[in-house]
Amino acid sequence: MQRIVVLAGGIGGARFLRGLKSAAPDADITVIGNTGDDIHLFGLKVCPDLDTVMYTLGGGIDEEKGWGRDGESFAVKEELAAYGVGPQWFGLGDRDFATHIVRTQMMGAGYPLSAVTEALCARWQPGVRLLPMTDDRVETHVLIDTADLAGSDGAEEQGRKAVHFQEYWVRLRASVDAHAVVPVGADTAKPAPGVLEAIAEADVVLFPPSNPVVSVGTILAVPGIREAIAEAGVPVVGLSPIVGDAPVRGMADKVLAAVGVETSAAAVARHYGSGLLDGWLVDETDAGAVAGVEEAGIRCRAVPLMMTDAEATARMAREALRMAEEVRA
Amino acid sequence: MQRIVVLAGGIGGARFLRGLKSAAPDADITVIGNTGDDIHLFGLKVCPDLDTVMYTLGGGIDEEKGWGRDGESFAVKEELAAYGVGPQWFGLGDRDFATHIVRTQMMGAGYPLSAVTEALCARWQPGVRLLPMTDDRVETHVLIDTADLAGSDGAEEQGRKAVHFQEYWVRLRASVDAHAVVPVGADTAKPAPGVLEAIAEADVVLFPPSNPVVSVGTILAVPGIREAIAEAGVPVVGLSPIVGDAPVRGMADKVLAAVGVETSAAAVARHYGSGLLDGWLVDETDAGAVAGVEEAGIRCRAVPLMMTDAEATARMAREALRMAEEVRA
Repeated sequence: MQRIVVLAGGIGGARFLRGLKSAAPDADITVIGNTGDDIHLFGLKVCPDLDTVMYTLGGGIDEEKGWGRDGESFAVKEELAAYGVGPQWFGLGDRDFATHIVRTQMMGAGYPLSAVTEALCARWQPGVRLLPMTDDRVETHVLIDTADLAGSDGAEEQGRKAVHFQEYWVRLRASVDAHAVVPVGADTAKPAPGVLEAIAEADVVLFPPSNPVVSVGTILAVPGIREAIAEAGVPVVGLSPIVGDAPVRGMADKVLAAVGVETSAAAVARHYGSGLLDGWLVDETDAGAVAGVEEAGIRCRAVPLMMTDAEATARMAREALRMAEEVRA
Repeated sequence: MQRIVVLAGGIGGARFLRGLKSAAPDADITVIGNTGDDIHLFGLKVCPDLDTVMYTLGGGIDEEKGWGRDGESFAVKEELAAYGVGPQWFGLGDRDFATHIVRTQMMGAGYPLSAVTEALCARWQPGVRLLPMTDDRVETHVLIDTADLAGSDGAEEQGRKAVHFQEYWVRLRASVDAHAVVPVGADTAKPAPGVLEAIAEADVVLFPPSNPVVSVGTILAVPGIREAIAEAGVPVVGLSPIVGDAPVRGMADKVLAAVGVETSAAAVARHYGSGLLDGWLVDETDAGAVAGVEEAGIRCRAVPLMMTDAEATARMAREALRMAEEVRA
């Protein structure tokens, strides 16, 4: 049985995983999920990326939005607003609240996030083993100009300020410049139980078309994970989240700029580097980038990379696995 | 301006207070609320009696049930059940959850329950000052036969077990014998800020037709409160929650038996005692009890005591205030 490890962010990672399960129904898939976008809201621990993977693979996702629960209602959020309690810019629905209530209660009782995630997955049966990258608290912060906050909260002073990733991404919609992206706490975080073991036992490691900075990049920032992948001696294949010089979804260009990487499929491959990445799939639109990526020592091929439907996504997964076999051979 | 202090439980206390506000619109009313039925559910702090008073006076109550929010939905509860997380016997709705989330978050940030209650009331504007009896944790437990639990959770052993009041009242619907009612923690609890001051400055103290054991009795169990009322030197007038040898609502007979008091308007008056109570209103049905209560040194009168509508309730409040004037004179 093929053992596949996938480093996943939110929507892109979750949808790719659905294609991968379809492409490799017998594979043993371990997902290492990003927890850098976790946030405490209303005293509750919210793990957007883990939940997006869990709901998507478990059949509980809002298919249209790509995040949150299907058939969702918002009574709790409306009541919190009536109490004047915020933030209101983060859209927590009633069904979703239940997940955060269960998680927070379990963590309050002393269970680590990995055990809580396993318990939640006992209901959702995602068909993969979902592990948080770490049980330690890591929060991705984004450095922005305080002037860019002026309109929203009256801050007048000049300078820069670090805001939580969710505040940058959801509240500000990544509409202002990001000067730096810092996974606070990552430097002292330890990989969650099972993470390094899964990598060591993997036959293939895949980077789905997730955000290379705030999703895959944050996972790789946990000491030990990047090294374990580089030393595993198995094919590491990624899929570009950038198609034709723009992110397929989300606002990855903003955070790529913050780390000095241009928004192109080739630049993202070089950002990961040949020390980590063996193979890289770019979209057909970016066929012109293939030669440059291969010059950087990374096998590259142009294939359709738009996850327009389940079959198209499964084809992408098959291409990634085929490239892994080529790397191995 | 007349200063009135009311010791209130849940539904009965809340409805009486609505009548009192109507009967004495210019009065300065302080409500000392029972917190012995507070319970932690799903990691959240739930204060059923305080919330019933707040929602009822603030226009947010489910009028039919008498507790919980109007227009309520139950998405969170259904999801918690889907996770297999209980208890399911306590009916928390989505709107209600928001109250408990705000409360729990504030308490987690270090605010005492009295400050949290004030903050919640800033939204509801109940028109009274609502104080919890104490900021300390007090939980009313009920001693029952373990055999009575056998059907529900498989307990086989003989003996007695203390269950949380809500488990007795809501889950078991007070259908089994109560051998004792213990307000755990009351002995070391301190009255919340403002409680003793409000009593000391009161012109009248009223006991609404709330449960004399688990509502008013629990408030009186906080050291200092009973003494402050007895020493205030102002009229203390109560309204019988028992009409015709049965509780008007709820299952007060069960917990009265546990403290050795028979279920009658006269027995409840004697239970409070002339050292505490100056006046007592019984229902017309119980006119025969008036003489006995007066023999016990408590002024007594029979008047209609069914809170069938707002006007009937206001009349009850006017009768209580009139009796207070007679006591004073």
